[in-house]
Amino acid sequence: MTDITPTARSRVKRHHERGAYDLDTIAGIIDDAFLCHVGYVIEGQPYVTPTSYWREDDIVYWHGSSASRMLRAQAQGIECCFTVTILDGLVLARSAFNHSVNYRSVMLFGHAQMVEARDEKLRQLELFTERLYPGRWRELRPVTDQELKATTVLSMRIEEGSAKVRSGPPKDDAPDYDWPVWAGVIPVHAGIGTAVRDGQSPAGVSEPAYLTDLSHTGFKSGSQR
Amino acid sequence: MTDITPTARSRVKRHHERGAYDLDTIAGIIDDAFLCHVGYVIEGQPYVTPTSYWREDDIVYWHGSSASRMLRAQAQGIECCFTVTILDGLVLARSAFNHSVNYRSVMLFGHAQMVEARDEKLRQLELFTERLYPGRWRELRPVTDQELKATTVLSMRIEEGSAKVRSGPPKDDAPDYDWPVWAGVIPVHAGIGTAVRDGQSPAGVSEPAYLTDLSHTGFKSGSQR
Repeated sequence: MTDITPTARSRVKRHHERGAYDLDTIAGIIDDAFLCHVGYVIEGQPYVTPTSYWREDDIVYWHGSSASRMLRAQAQGIECCFTVTILDGLVLARSAFNHSVNYRSVMLFGHAQMVEARDEKLRQLELFTERLYPGRWRELRPVTDQELKATTVLSMRIEEGSAKVRSGPPKDDAPDYDWPVWAGVIPVHAGIGTAVRDGQSPAGVSEPAYLTDLSHTGFKSGSQR
Repeated sequence: MTDITPTARSRVKRHHERGAYDLDTIAGIIDDAFLCHVGYVIEGQPYVTPTSYWREDDIVYWHGSSASRMLRAQAQGIECCFTVTILDGLVLARSAFNHSVNYRSVMLFGHAQMVEARDEKLRQLELFTERLYPGRWRELRPVTDQELKATTVLSMRIEEGSAKVRSGPPKDDAPDYDWPVWAGVIPVHAGIGTAVRDGQSPAGVSEPAYLTDLSHTGFKSGSQR
């Protein structure tokens, strides 16, 4: 994958040292989260909708009901902003002003396109499922034509945008380091708890490995913290 | 607090049974998260910026550098969309189509206003700090005038918007319940790990309680999961 060139609107200005434009960094952050927030404009009003997503190469995908206002608007090729944010820590400094957070975020600009071809749409939904739950797709009751029609899949190429990352301890003003207050970082993570079966499956159904380990999508389970 | 009236753009249409418009529900979700995503439009382009925030009564607040493009644009009274999303679980059904997520989200529409009065700005920054870290404000090196000038605080009244909530087990099609695949919910939470001191404070500084318990802001610590 080639890196992207910063533009006037995508170049990180505040704390520019935190900005990154290489696709490895951008893809790494995208692959380590589960929800994005998609921004779009209808009649001058901005909307920000949370949704799950997935990535293949330099394209991000999201999906939903074909009846959704959001997806119908986005599928018409309007401008979108695709933002992913991972909170990694709360940064406690000696002054209120120097408090911060550790995070990894990606902001992409572009136009969404609908995935129209039946086979490609099905393949993308399989990728989405398998990204989260490896091996699950072929165990599920197969997708029907009606379900496929009721589902819209959108894609957006990673071609304009940036990543922004803060990590490490607080940065205090030099004279403040003697101030007698606790300073450092409280790490934050997205965690999973104990999976709860709905109790309606036939007896003898086994427990797949992804119920306790979703670290490939950035979630931490109890034993990994 | 009074409830808000759904409008054409704020009424939940998809899965309308998940929508709520009462301020208790909305405030409860807002108070249980740490980051929001603010959407705004500059020259036709939507931007979605993650930021921390806080709430007092029926007003939400966020803040940042007075030099920030985002805050400068928002402070001019442009339309904003303020979205908070809490992921509570991954919902695994018998068909790909019926997979879902459990979540609590809030979407608010409005115009941001700058908090101009010095005392009110300082009071709001104290509320923000104390919301997260009870008792910390008075232990910090006091805020200077220069820091206060360098900080912009924005406010937006909760007057148009909605909450949307999904909870509970998967809802499969009746004939699918016999399908031999694991189905249920993997609970998800925002968790905190072991706080890491930066090692530069004077000896004898005590460890405040919020280093291990931030449950008042929706984070879970190890022992609470």
